[in-house]
Formats: sequence, structure tokens, C-alpha cells
Amino acid sequence: MGDPAGIGGEVILKSLPELSRKTIPVVIGDSHVMGIVAKQLFGSNAPFFNNFKDGGTEGVEFIDLGLIEEVQFGRSDPKYGEASYKYIIEALKLLFAGEVSAIVTCPINKKSINSAGIEFIGHTELLAHYSGVKDYVMMMANRSMRVSLVTIHIPIKEVPHALSVEKITKTILITHNSLKTYFGLERPHIKVCGLNPHAGEGGIMGDEETMIQEAIGVAQSLNVNVEGPFPADTLFHRVDCDAYIAMYHDQGLIPVKTVDFYRTVNITLGLPFVRTSPGHGTGYDIAGKGIADPSSLLEAYRIAENMIFINQLI
Amino acid sequence: MGDPAGIGGEVILKSLPELSRKTIPVVIGDSHVMGIVAKQLFGSNAPFFNNFKDGGTEGVEFIDLGLIEEVQFGRSDPKYGEASYKYIIEALKLLFAGEVSAIVTCPINKKSINSAGIEFIGHTELLAHYSGVKDYVMMMANRSMRVSLVTIHIPIKEVPHALSVEKITKTILITHNSLKTYFGLERPHIKVCGLNPHAGEGGIMGDEETMIQEAIGVAQSLNVNVEGPFPADTLFHRVDCDAYIAMYHDQGLIPVKTVDFYRTVNITLGLPFVRTSPGHGTGYDIAGKGIADPSSLLEAYRIAENMIFINQLI
Repeated sequence: MGDPAGIGGEVILKSLPELSRKTIPVVIGDSHVMGIVAKQLFGSNAPFFNNFKDGGTEGVEFIDLGLIEEVQFGRSDPKYGEASYKYIIEALKLLFAGEVSAIVTCPINKKSINSAGIEFIGHTELLAHYSGVKDYVMMMANRSMRVSLVTIHIPIKEVPHALSVEKITKTILITHNSLKTYFGLERPHIKVCGLNPHAGEGGIMGDEETMIQEAIGVAQSLNVNVEGPFPADTLFHRVDCDAYIAMYHDQGLIPVKTVDFYRTVNITLGLPFVRTSPGHGTGYDIAGKGIADPSSLLEAYRIAENMIFINQLI
Repeated sequence: MGDPAGIGGEVILKSLPELSRKTIPVVIGDSHVMGIVAKQLFGSNAPFFNNFKDGGTEGVEFIDLGLIEEVQFGRSDPKYGEASYKYIIEALKLLFAGEVSAIVTCPINKKSINSAGIEFIGHTELLAHYSGVKDYVMMMANRSMRVSLVTIHIPIKEVPHALSVEKITKTILITHNSLKTYFGLERPHIKVCGLNPHAGEGGIMGDEETMIQEAIGVAQSLNVNVEGPFPADTLFHRVDCDAYIAMYHDQGLIPVKTVDFYRTVNITLGLPFVRTSPGHGTGYDIAGKGIADPSSLLEAYRIAENMIFINQLI
């Protein structure tokens, strides 16, 4: 459900009627919050919600952790942080017990979680930690393009130092393997961005492209269909490959979010299970108003479903 | 005409029949190159070209500098560099003599110009130099959005050091003034990007946003309708302002080129005249093949025309 004071509950309730029914969604959250949102959105005839109280029916299951007795939408609070953390832990337990096949996380508020005394960088880092995984990749995807990031949440000035042949190579390989295993692409085609304007233009505007070229060479020697480094500004309009590799946050997220913001999904590659998430945040400015757009959660669920099915076929 | 070995001649000939006729295009180039391209594109009945030899008719004027006797498309050569440099100088002469109202430049090859012994960073820098202008701004625009850049052709690792309150403020003010004077917007609305992921998220991922905030404050105190800094990844899909200010090359060029690559135009703001250019390069890989897309030149000419007319009205 994500942060109780965010739009998580709302986009879940709006999404449920639209799901494919090929899988059973298990909602982990708080019935108090869901009740308020359900009443607001659907009045007394809120679908699903009446059943939630009894654990869910109609192909939807609900796990009520009963942690929240009162909610003020759009406000950060340690209680909300603790609750959203426990929802994730519960999801992980079910996953490791083999009860569920994938995790779709709704947005959480970093401040609320930290104020609850929980050390927490992000969903991705936490899931990797509990899975014992060191090398993972954040991919943002929609129906137009997929982009994997080599570096994520660091200042621009640290990006050049954070890049290495090893890190770039791993990002390429994890992306390649995931596209094969979870997206059913036999020989995925990957294009890699340069770091600098015009990909350095032969060293005139930066030289990190030499390192990127080396990483591409390593991946190619492992039979990966990967090319680059290309100037990033003229690359994305083509949409002529299966995934792009971007060197830093905005280089990858600007194109994918600009072309189709509301259906952009965050996918963690390299974990021992499928994990997706909507591309947006908690939406504190619109939480509790009934105007949140569920498209990204729907797309996150749809992609997780597809990844599971394709993985079972392979 | 730009570089003789590039797609300049071809996109000019393809564009001429499509122009609005509200202004008279003056082509500065070489008839030898134009002749080859004309014959290839249109056969013996090439429109305009026969008249070019006599200085042009049918609402098109042609100035043949007669510098090129032989051309090999897609090849860099000092002769081509010298010629393309002289085309620009000729255009500047006509402009300062009041014979023409604006300059639309076709792409040039930096290597060819440098190999001709001419010190040359780019069109923009050269035009600014001869105009005695120190503060100018590169804007990329199409029908979806306009983006002004604070820094342009420098390595990513130099960007944080190259930013200053003064430089950001000047970029905002020049953009503001140009939108009023050349785009007819009475109170243009400008949005400014942060430098770091999530615009630094309150200092967690970089602190240059403090400087950006200060520049915005200065501009606001001068009654400019400007806001920010905003996270760049969630900004451009809205297209809800008259111009964006980006901190570096790819941050601004990725969104504008991704949404409408073939109609993206480069506009130099802050010069004492109108100057536009197609958003693409010399196209050496496709030069001489007859497959170049003239959309960006057409759009560059259309925008230059509009800027002149609006400026005359004000």
C-alpha cells in the first residue's frame, strides 16, 4: 500500500477493477485507510472494500496489518513511516515463503520512514539487502522505451567518479540477462549513452567515454548485442532497441518520463524475484482528494504479471 | 549552405518549394555543390537551380561564392571548412549592411573548419564574437517546448563548477527578454531545472540548487515570471510553460529532441539579430544520398520569419 498518507490506497482501489484477473492481487496495508479512501471514492457501495475486512474475496486478497488508527493525508509522520516499512517486510515474508510471486510497491515517504528511526535509502536498496543481492539495476520503462541506470541517487558532481568499467559492465549484463529471462527477448539489443555532450566528441568534451567503450567491449566479448557510447540527446527519439543504458538519473529518466509519464514503471533488475513500482511518488499534494491517476500502478502490475509468466515459460 | 560535404545543400533545395513566401530567402553557398544536389534530387528540371546561376528568381536569391570545384560528400576537408566559414562571414556582412533580416545557418563541420586553420568553437560563438556580444543563450525549440541552456559544450564533470548565480540569472533574463521581443509573449512563464536528481531533494543529493534558487530570486525581483528549481525528470512532460531553463546540454536537449526530433531548431538569443539553425548536424553518413529530411531547416526558417515579424510589431 505504501505510505498511508499518500495516494497508495487510492490508486490500489482504482486499479483493482481494471486488473487482468490472470493473477490474484494481495494487498498489504491498513483497512482503516482503505476504508476512508473507499468511502470517498465509491460511497457506501465501495467494491472490494467490504470484503477486505474478511480477508478479501472476488479474486482480491487483503492483509490488514491494523497499524493505523487515524490518517491525515499529505502529512509526514513516523507512524506512517513505520507502517509502510512493515508492509514491505510482510510482502518479503510472503515472497520468501512462496506465497506470492512478485512484489509491486506503492510509493513511500523517506522522511516518515527515517523519522521512525528506520535506516532506509529506498525500496530498491532494502529489497536488495534482504535478498542478499549486491548488484542490481534500476530500470524505468513504459510502452515506448526501457532505460537502465548505471548511477541513481547521487549528486551530478559525483557521477563521473562513480562510474567504472565494472559498474557499467554489470549494468549492461544484468539488463541483458533480465531482458532474456523476464521479457522473453532471445537476443536483446542494447544501446549505451555517453556521459558527456555529443558523447565527448572524440575527447573534446570529456573522456569518460573511453571507459564506457571498454565496458561495452567486455559485454560484446560475452556475446551481448550492445552498442555505443552514443550522444544521449539524439538517441531516444529513435526507440530502435530493447533497452538503453544511461549513466545517471536524469539522463535516463528525462526521456522515459517525458514520452509517457503516466505509464512509466520502475523495475528492479537483478533481484531473485520480480519487483515493480509506479514511477511516481507519494503525491502528498493530491493525497486524499480522489484525483490520483492509477495508470502507473496498473502498468506496474501488468508488467510484473508479464515478467512472471514469461519467466515461467523459459 | 553550411558544410559543402554535408546535407546543407540538399535540405535547402528540398525546403525552397515549401517556404511561406512572406520573406525572400537568400542562399549563400556554391553553385557547383547545389548543381550536383539539384540534378540528383530533381533531374534536369531542378526547380530554382537554373535560376541560381543568374542570381536567383522566383522569390529566391542565390549568392555563389564559387569556392568549391569538386565535392566529396561525407568527407572532412580544409577547403570545405574554409568555404563554410566564408558563407557565414558573407551572411554577417549582408546582415550588418541591412540587406537581410536574419541568418539561418546550415550545419558545419568543426574538424574541417579547424583544419583550415580557422579557430572556431561553433556558429553561435562566432556570431556572438562578431556582434560584440558577451552574453547569449542557446535555445532549442520545437512546437512542443522551448529549452534554454545555462552551460553548453563542456564535460559533465565541469558543469557544477561552471554554474553561477550570475550565469543562471543572465540565462533567465535573456530568455525572458527574447520571449517578449521575438515571440510576442507579454509575461512569459519560465521554469528552471535543478542540477541534481530530484533537484537535490533538500540537499540530500547535491546543493547547487541553493545557487539556482538564488538566481531565480534575483529574476523574480526583476518581475520575471520564473519558478523552480524543479526535478528535471518530472518537468518536461507537462509542457506547461513558455520556456524551460536547463543547467547542461543533455538535460535540455534530451527532452526537446526526444519529443519532436525532426522539427527541433537551435535559436541563439541575445544577439542583435535573429539567428536560427536546424537542430541536426552535417549528416555526413547520409550526405549526397538524397534522403535527408528538410523538416528542421524548414522549421528554423519558419521560426526566424516569425521572430522578425513579431519583433517588427513590437
